[in-house]
Amino acid sequence: MAIARMSVAELEAFLHAEFPQAFRDGDIAIESADGETCLLRQRYSERMLRPGGTVSGPTLMALADFAMYVVLLSRIGPVGLAVTANLNINFLRRGRPGQDVLAAARLLKLGKRLAVGEVTLLSGTSPDPIAHVTSTYSIPNA
Amino acid sequence: MAIARMSVAELEAFLHAEFPQAFRDGDIAIESADGETCLLRQRYSERMLRPGGTVSGPTLMALADFAMYVVLLSRIGPVGLAVTANLNINFLRRGRPGQDVLAAARLLKLGKRLAVGEVTLLSGTSPDPIAHVTSTYSIPNA
Amino acid sequence: MAIARMSVAELEAFLHAEFPQAFRDGDIAIESADGETCLLRQRYSERMLRPGGTVSGPTLMALADFAMYVVLLSRIGPVGLAVTANLNINFLRRGRPGQDVLAAARLLKLGKRLAVGEVTLLSGTSPDPIAHVTSTYSIPNA
Amino acid sequence: MAIARMSVAELEAFLHAEFPQAFRDGDIAIESADGETCLLRQRYSERMLRPGGTVSGPTLMALADFAMYVVLLSRIGPVGLAVTANLNINFLRRGRPGQDVLAAARLLKLGKRLAVGEVTLLSGTSPDPIAHVTSTYSIPNA
Repeated sequence: MAIARMSVAELEAFLHAEFPQAFRDGDIAIESADGETCLLRQRYSERMLRPGGTVSGPTLMALADFAMYVVLLSRIGPVGLAVTANLNINFLRRGRPGQDVLAAARLLKLGKRLAVGEVTLLSGTSPDPIAHVTSTYSIPNA
Repeated sequence: MAIARMSVAELEAFLHAEFPQAFRDGDIAIESADGETCLLRQRYSERMLRPGGTVSGPTLMALADFAMYVVLLSRIGPVGLAVTANLNINFLRRGRPGQDVLAAARLLKLGKRLAVGEVTLLSGTSPDPIAHVTSTYSIPNA
Repeated sequence: MAIARMSVAELEAFLHAEFPQAFRDGDIAIESADGETCLLRQRYSERMLRPGGTVSGPTLMALADFAMYVVLLSRIGPVGLAVTANLNINFLRRGRPGQDVLAAARLLKLGKRLAVGEVTLLSGTSPDPIAHVTSTYSIPNA
Repeated sequence: MAIARMSVAELEAFLHAEFPQAFRDGDIAIESADGETCLLRQRYSERMLRPGGTVSGPTLMALADFAMYVVLLSRIGPVGLAVTANLNINFLRRGRPGQDVLAAARLLKLGKRLAVGEVTLLSGTSPDPIAHVTSTYSIPNA
């Protein structure tokens, strides 16, 4: 079992300072992060919808990218500016208006230079994922 | 050579009505669209930056997704609500602050049910792409 | 819980007839398939190695693509020629020589036209995946 | 313009020694390689077909992966064992039986640690691609 280098409180303090735009609308919360997985919740707002009343793709891509960053930080600590190298998303079902979006991220590999993870995106309490993401982060040299 | 079903003016009118949020900050313009390719420009704003002063991943993913939608509409016309099925992005270089971001999209295939395209993202006038996207849209039945 | 439309024996009979090349070396076995998941085993052979003694990328891509096809058939039955539309693979660790390769596939979504799944590739009895795949199949009209 | 570190003759000599399995059937030839692009031809054989008489996905994935490796070697020279980190393929059209398959690769970025490229796969003399690949290679430390 991995040992987290940062607690949820430490992650939120670091990210509010470094990434204020991710929280600018006060709508993303880190529910858990343990060095291997994390769970984020984006509270429902009309801004996340696209025509037809479904959750927009950019909302899901941004949240998944952020979740991958959070789980990575929780594992390696605030050791510099990791950047996304690749992100692949499959949209599976429509997210429903009125529902929060949840992002459950999991590290698949942490190497010296690359971290790979997957993120499952969920709408409200439905167990069926609305999107699935795999992503690679490039980790700067210590 | 493909014949465009919608002109740039028609695309902008349709999209302003259907996708007002894509234009809400007045910062995206359709420079060209001909049924096979399109070119979009997102004017520089500080909102597109992430820490370190580089253009954020979500900015690029949202713009690429929108460019793919614009080139598809320019080819097939406003025949209903096409939705993204898959998007894969490789981040290549840092976009520079102060520079517009350009998205050059091209259809690779238009089938009855799926359209596949690629989008090259550029920063200002540099010829070196800052990101490369491939994307699949699912086309609803006529 | 999904109900499988084809048993492992039925899948093997169908695939030996339709896809003899997948079994030509007698080295792939379907260990289970239940309409939602399947597990395939490719027995170790020197042909699966690349220089440096690691399992080659094409070996893993071919096995993952086949596993996705098997789980899809187990769900929908032999209703025609589904074809891969997209496959994305992240290589995570080196597969070790002398070890079988296992592919554990899972359907993430089965729509009328598209099926999306993920495949985890494992080397021998190690719990750490050597590669992770997501894939989309296009399902022909009935 | 990039200067190639290895000529086609040097690449073939290196690869026949290091990757004999890629040439084992004598069916892949490097038509050109200049440090930025390369063109490979895989001569038609029945082994590349899948049921329905179309070119199989694994044939295309293996050829694209190899083309990406060839263009990278032509740029950086034989400096050790680069490995694929990610490969994403979109299948676009059916490759026709009886036709050679061509792979046209192009480097999109060469960094210190990662190289990203795209590969267009063609069937015979048709200008319409049968598949499109993006791929990331991890470059070992010098």
